[in-house]
Amino acid sequence: MRFEEPRFQPADADFADRVLGSFARQGLMQTLGAHLEDVRPGFCEIRLPYRDGLSQQHGFFHAGATAAIADSAGGYAAFSLMGADDSVLSVEYKINLLSPARGDLLIARGRVVRAGKTLSVCHTDVFVRREGNETLCATMQQTVMRLRDRADLPTPG
Amino acid sequence: MRFEEPRFQPADADFADRVLGSFARQGLMQTLGAHLEDVRPGFCEIRLPYRDGLSQQHGFFHAGATAAIADSAGGYAAFSLMGADDSVLSVEYKINLLSPARGDLLIARGRVVRAGKTLSVCHTDVFVRREGNETLCATMQQTVMRLRDRADLPTPG
Amino acid sequence: MRFEEPRFQPADADFADRVLGSFARQGLMQTLGAHLEDVRPGFCEIRLPYRDGLSQQHGFFHAGATAAIADSAGGYAAFSLMGADDSVLSVEYKINLLSPARGDLLIARGRVVRAGKTLSVCHTDVFVRREGNETLCATMQQTVMRLRDRADLPTPG
Amino acid sequence: MRFEEPRFQPADADFADRVLGSFARQGLMQTLGAHLEDVRPGFCEIRLPYRDGLSQQHGFFHAGATAAIADSAGGYAAFSLMGADDSVLSVEYKINLLSPARGDLLIARGRVVRAGKTLSVCHTDVFVRREGNETLCATMQQTVMRLRDRADLPTPG
Repeated sequence: MRFEEPRFQPADADFADRVLGSFARQGLMQTLGAHLEDVRPGFCEIRLPYRDGLSQQHGFFHAGATAAIADSAGGYAAFSLMGADDSVLSVEYKINLLSPARGDLLIARGRVVRAGKTLSVCHTDVFVRREGNETLCATMQQTVMRLRDRADLPTPG
Repeated sequence: MRFEEPRFQPADADFADRVLGSFARQGLMQTLGAHLEDVRPGFCEIRLPYRDGLSQQHGFFHAGATAAIADSAGGYAAFSLMGADDSVLSVEYKINLLSPARGDLLIARGRVVRAGKTLSVCHTDVFVRREGNETLCATMQQTVMRLRDRADLPTPG
Repeated sequence: MRFEEPRFQPADADFADRVLGSFARQGLMQTLGAHLEDVRPGFCEIRLPYRDGLSQQHGFFHAGATAAIADSAGGYAAFSLMGADDSVLSVEYKINLLSPARGDLLIARGRVVRAGKTLSVCHTDVFVRREGNETLCATMQQTVMRLRDRADLPTPG
Repeated sequence: MRFEEPRFQPADADFADRVLGSFARQGLMQTLGAHLEDVRPGFCEIRLPYRDGLSQQHGFFHAGATAAIADSAGGYAAFSLMGADDSVLSVEYKINLLSPARGDLLIARGRVVRAGKTLSVCHTDVFVRREGNETLCATMQQTVMRLRDRADLPTPG
């Protein structure tokens, strides 16, 4: 336990739809094969099943796949607390790769630690599942920025 | 300019073949469509052309793609200085996303800042090319570990 | 809550004495006026009362003071799990400054997230106390290295 | 060399006075004994002579001292480009400690990599001088925020 988990009130009641819609427009998440498992105020979980096309040179999940879903999980955890006219942007993150990501499923759980007016900070833990057991394989600390008046909507066309 | 660029002597004359072979075994790099453009002692460049399957929700390169090739560029810059029986592992990295990665090509250039016996530290800059101009869009600081006596070779069989 | 807190068994029953002795040899901690409040297997708390000599330009705690005690808290949390002949070294860390460190006392609580043979990873939260209330003002993610056979003892002489 | 050094135009001709005045109000820099050696648009150098009160447990500079002057050097490099009514704040940083900071003087050289409207990113290298030779001992990547309409001036009264 790092710190008593903050409770958040969403600014926009439709936060879940906005998050799901934005996730669906991320081509990379589809290319990787990730899906958004859960979103609650200040929390988001993304899952990614293993396949050879996600490997590093030893046949485990590539750190690039681990970081990509962790970045999105933290970003959408923060986005869940933003307003209907806001957009979200990752400013920076730092990730530690704690153990080989060897298994059949990656699970990234992102949580907002502090929701500021402009910047939010998230912690995301990534677990790898193998033979039914989850092991913590990476941990990320991330800064996310709120862009006002640029709603994250489908491009008209 | 951060610091006068260190000159490195490779420990293994076949470093380029080892790097190219290891890169070819990274399924994720193939899934993304990245290629290894250049490797020299303590330096590696990886390139990734744009396609919709690499996008974030606004149609630019997803930060996950940017970070994935930056991580590999830094890792292989460090691996180029290791011995024939060594393997390489990313311990952690931190990336700042400096500007929207909007363009037709990403170019990650990784450089070793310090090559230690166990740990090496790399700086990788990522540029996005648009209408022929390169713009710095991300910068990474990374720690890489040398694993001795576990040569990064194709799995027999 | 980030993750269920790991339980650790110390490798050396005298871990608390080793940590306290090492802390006492850190001249900077004395110059700042920090004291080690608590050490348990995989955990360390360091406190620092405010004075003008620790300020930044607006009269709050300088981030340099915040980071210095966070770095030591994480480092000693990891050191508490090491052997009697080991020494400890910070490899790198990343800190987010979440809110102004305005108050009369800083409290850094460091926890080991993963204790490896060579590298350990710690999370440290720093709270500032003001009018009796604690506010999270910084959070750190850190990599620490174990140096074998270099016991952290007073220099003879 | 990481990247061709950007050239910056200061927004405020009196940038050097503002930086020097702000530095003089940082109690921690005085407690440590640091001085501001140089400031140019997008660049700042801070120096810190060794004394026992800055040590870690082995008698070298404590990483807390290294990070404190690096944080200030990067922050003031960014502040040199801001307006007369702006104030500066470190959002977060990541530092790698590359080699033992053993010597008689620390030199932190901070450079702005990207100056944004709200956020700037800096790279700071720290060198330790020993027997006249400078060795790179730490490297920092930092995000700095501009606070508008809160000029960093002496508190009246």
